[in-house]
Amino acid sequence: MANTDIEGLKLEQRHGKARVRVARVWRSKEGRHFTVEWKVNISLLSDCTAAYLRHDNSDIVATDTMKNTVYVKAKECSEQLSVEDFAILLANHFTSSYRQVTTAIVNIVEKPWERVSINGQPHEHGFKLGSEKHTTEVIVQKSGALQLTSGVEGLALLKTTKSGFEGFVRDKYTALPETRERMLATEVTASWRYSYDSISSIPRNPFYFTERYLDVKKVLLETFFGPPKEGVYSASVQSTLYDMAKAVLNRFLDIQSVQLKMPNIHFLPVNISSKDNQMVKFDDDVYLPTDEPHGSIEASLSRIWSKM
Amino acid sequence: MANTDIEGLKLEQRHGKARVRVARVWRSKEGRHFTVEWKVNISLLSDCTAAYLRHDNSDIVATDTMKNTVYVKAKECSEQLSVEDFAILLANHFTSSYRQVTTAIVNIVEKPWERVSINGQPHEHGFKLGSEKHTTEVIVQKSGALQLTSGVEGLALLKTTKSGFEGFVRDKYTALPETRERMLATEVTASWRYSYDSISSIPRNPFYFTERYLDVKKVLLETFFGPPKEGVYSASVQSTLYDMAKAVLNRFLDIQSVQLKMPNIHFLPVNISSKDNQMVKFDDDVYLPTDEPHGSIEASLSRIWSKM
Amino acid sequence: MANTDIEGLKLEQRHGKARVRVARVWRSKEGRHFTVEWKVNISLLSDCTAAYLRHDNSDIVATDTMKNTVYVKAKECSEQLSVEDFAILLANHFTSSYRQVTTAIVNIVEKPWERVSINGQPHEHGFKLGSEKHTTEVIVQKSGALQLTSGVEGLALLKTTKSGFEGFVRDKYTALPETRERMLATEVTASWRYSYDSISSIPRNPFYFTERYLDVKKVLLETFFGPPKEGVYSASVQSTLYDMAKAVLNRFLDIQSVQLKMPNIHFLPVNISSKDNQMVKFDDDVYLPTDEPHGSIEASLSRIWSKM
Amino acid sequence: MANTDIEGLKLEQRHGKARVRVARVWRSKEGRHFTVEWKVNISLLSDCTAAYLRHDNSDIVATDTMKNTVYVKAKECSEQLSVEDFAILLANHFTSSYRQVTTAIVNIVEKPWERVSINGQPHEHGFKLGSEKHTTEVIVQKSGALQLTSGVEGLALLKTTKSGFEGFVRDKYTALPETRERMLATEVTASWRYSYDSISSIPRNPFYFTERYLDVKKVLLETFFGPPKEGVYSASVQSTLYDMAKAVLNRFLDIQSVQLKMPNIHFLPVNISSKDNQMVKFDDDVYLPTDEPHGSIEASLSRIWSKM
Repeated sequence: MANTDIEGLKLEQRHGKARVRVARVWRSKEGRHFTVEWKVNISLLSDCTAAYLRHDNSDIVATDTMKNTVYVKAKECSEQLSVEDFAILLANHFTSSYRQVTTAIVNIVEKPWERVSINGQPHEHGFKLGSEKHTTEVIVQKSGALQLTSGVEGLALLKTTKSGFEGFVRDKYTALPETRERMLATEVTASWRYSYDSISSIPRNPFYFTERYLDVKKVLLETFFGPPKEGVYSASVQSTLYDMAKAVLNRFLDIQSVQLKMPNIHFLPVNISSKDNQMVKFDDDVYLPTDEPHGSIEASLSRIWSKM
Repeated sequence: MANTDIEGLKLEQRHGKARVRVARVWRSKEGRHFTVEWKVNISLLSDCTAAYLRHDNSDIVATDTMKNTVYVKAKECSEQLSVEDFAILLANHFTSSYRQVTTAIVNIVEKPWERVSINGQPHEHGFKLGSEKHTTEVIVQKSGALQLTSGVEGLALLKTTKSGFEGFVRDKYTALPETRERMLATEVTASWRYSYDSISSIPRNPFYFTERYLDVKKVLLETFFGPPKEGVYSASVQSTLYDMAKAVLNRFLDIQSVQLKMPNIHFLPVNISSKDNQMVKFDDDVYLPTDEPHGSIEASLSRIWSKM
Repeated sequence: MANTDIEGLKLEQRHGKARVRVARVWRSKEGRHFTVEWKVNISLLSDCTAAYLRHDNSDIVATDTMKNTVYVKAKECSEQLSVEDFAILLANHFTSSYRQVTTAIVNIVEKPWERVSINGQPHEHGFKLGSEKHTTEVIVQKSGALQLTSGVEGLALLKTTKSGFEGFVRDKYTALPETRERMLATEVTASWRYSYDSISSIPRNPFYFTERYLDVKKVLLETFFGPPKEGVYSASVQSTLYDMAKAVLNRFLDIQSVQLKMPNIHFLPVNISSKDNQMVKFDDDVYLPTDEPHGSIEASLSRIWSKM
Repeated sequence: MANTDIEGLKLEQRHGKARVRVARVWRSKEGRHFTVEWKVNISLLSDCTAAYLRHDNSDIVATDTMKNTVYVKAKECSEQLSVEDFAILLANHFTSSYRQVTTAIVNIVEKPWERVSINGQPHEHGFKLGSEKHTTEVIVQKSGALQLTSGVEGLALLKTTKSGFEGFVRDKYTALPETRERMLATEVTASWRYSYDSISSIPRNPFYFTERYLDVKKVLLETFFGPPKEGVYSASVQSTLYDMAKAVLNRFLDIQSVQLKMPNIHFLPVNISSKDNQMVKFDDDVYLPTDEPHGSIEASLSRIWSKM
């Protein structure tokens, strides 16, 4: 938020454009097409108090102008690039172009269009929508200082065994039985912050962050599920979450911190009885999947010793 | 609908239970797990007019009872089976068990849990959510007569070229230019009706319909996209839809009819100008993807000569 | 659907434009503003088989043209009119203007913008969004034959007593206890068909159908809730639904049939116990409101003796 | 977040239960019923690092236990109370009952059930769902320190005139024309923080915060729309937002700060032309309402001199 004090009051404000949708197609000489679809949110922190107080819009960058800029910049990208690189380029544009803009915050969600294969061959221009989404948030200061976060949302995972929950607090509000055998289902929202702290310091490879995204996702899945034969026991969502975050930090040295939100999406054991009749007796076989309520477990794990 | 005439009025009615969610896990001796997650809707057509007219519920099968039945039947399935077979089993239960139930309609949507691979090996008990969903609708009469429909929903497809739209009606309400080069994006909802017309006539293989589902999807994709190198030109959504429907009927002789809903999800060419300035000039590169409005094209193609 | 037989196959098809959004403002000389916001869906049944079979779009009314037409017609309405009248005007345009269009189907949902009051005075140009929505579906044939249906969606109702469910079928799948005291909650989707069967026969008052909409809603509510002091006992959703439908037919002679969908949205009694401890014992006080599963009760009631 | 340092890493974590739904009915001796429906989110900051690191759940309050507590506490409320008071009571329970819990955060959204009137008389036990929702967020520390925030979400407002946007930055990315006549539509999300900083300091009236909620909403509307005849000119969303926030602070002395999110929901002027033909020429009459993109304007206004 941009802050100002006025007449004994503090005003904190930002303005921007949300849900700006853009698709970009690149066509190689050989006839192969590449495409991305992005939903862009822009927020500017800027000195424009007069608009709030005195009907004076002379410091306001219109949100319509921000929207146009997304399309101009997408057009200017003559080569494909990662969503992170596009977000940085866009944020940097706003802090560089406008005196009054001190900070630009750009969030982008990439739709998971995946190249289809027909008869085992990748198609030159055919795409199908996948599931989880690549996200990024970029904060750029006028100084060139950068905070770069990437993430994934909608990564729904389920393991049918090797999960339990025991030894928790029992009191007069506790009804949950202890168990060493339950379903574990979650929809992971992860974000990880890179240690690159200025625009000039980021890697030059235009797909560097795209590859990182795929690699981080791989580590998250490997840690959640464990080896293909044996799996790995989860003593709690907390414990599994911690192992996942730690594995990411151990593996990727340019990642400074990881945040994971892992709702515990309950698959309830089904037992149904009437007065005289046990209709269904649970035997680790029939479950009731639910959306609400759900456990909400979230944590972030950061390196303490870092230049940031 | 179940029909009754009363005092110069016609009453048509049905009742049921919607959004009954169930997950079933099967565990092989070798330690491999299989799982499905279904959302079940049940509707019964039954002779229960007294409940409407005379506060007499004696012919009403409670919707809570229908819900219980889903879990009992899921429990009784000691071997994995297709969603179609489960729907038939369930529908048949209602028409067989209750004198007053003349027709049972069961709709199920299967969540696309897919086995994960870790280090290239399929995981014994780990699953990740995919994208499009397998659906089925089963209508069973007391006589054993069957209507069996399978489908897919949420199959989002995009091709970046080989699509155009020309030669349509031009009048004073027409502004759309003709083109031979546009994006073609849609979210296919397909359903296909099988020619099996009684419960006793369906194939015995418990995965018959699961395999058909995968095969039909494959034919739909191949026809939509064309060969991996050249693709195939789409002269209209109508034309592509027809080719897809026809390909399914040509390939699968036990499919009696196909219905396709293929909204034309517009990716608008981006051109932006102010009075003095052409900011973005479209060159088949930058698009604005939209949700609304969208074209709505739907059609069904059926064999005329059939026992049905 | 428009039907054609080709090479042993039957093609049924329609095309249109969905989610066309339009707002219209009318300003009186005295300075009072009136506004509506509509979401329009158009479907045309037309002879355009060549587009499906032969890449020939010469009979296709582009969906973009349909969209433009919505705006042209909204512009042409220099006086405010009911959503029904606008739908009829639009549908009639398509069947009248295009030789190949045999039937036009127009659905509109009106957003419930309500004039605000400030200090007890209605505001000249200020509006706030309400809850349930006015809907209409109009089907016009080239002959001028009309089917006119109006409705309401999202009408969520709750009564905290005077509802029970007893005497239903009990068998080995039944666990639900009988009760004479429960919450009754539903989200009514209603539609009623008028007996006007041609465009020329509809009432001339531009707000006739708007007033009917308000009156029908009033009758639905009065019947659902009963008198303000005593209420009225509901023996089942079926019974209450029937009474509501019948009250509408009794009251409005130009309504030919009523359809009601009234999901039974369960507010479950809360009882929680652990092995040693009854934490919460239900006493008609604490409930768990749920979205899924829900009962689905739907019925239509029609006059048998009618010219239609 | 609860913080811990471990082996050169910092762990910040919280856990809780989200989407716990509860309805409570109170029945007066005279036969009048009162009801609320709440969706409760609970988050606990607690010392439970062992669960993350060492598979030791002995400090974990199970999220299932949190859920039970909601129902126990709702049961214990023998008299109706504001959603704020319920949230405080709940949060206080967690910090008081569990040694390891340092902070409890409770968010509640209240469903807008409104008593219906039948023939002009308020109904004893009948309710209908309204539109915008009352929300609250309560943060309670073990010390009894309190942060209390109330809010409204989903308050959709529209004025058809007395809004413009002029004098903003123009550069080569700007295409938006200046105007003194446009629609102004938004969906307000507001929250206001009270200055009560401990549980013991809050007003005793069980409906104090319910009345405040209604009064704040009234001030927000009055400021947005202006007097019923003349209205008030809006020079920008920023300016209107500021006036609304300031009016709340001026009027309610126990409110310490106000946050407003007011997306600018665009109603685009409709102009449609083909090469030869101006189909629709905008004359402040026909608009295209849109959901995306939208402007995003948010700000908070706080008293600087406050005990907080």
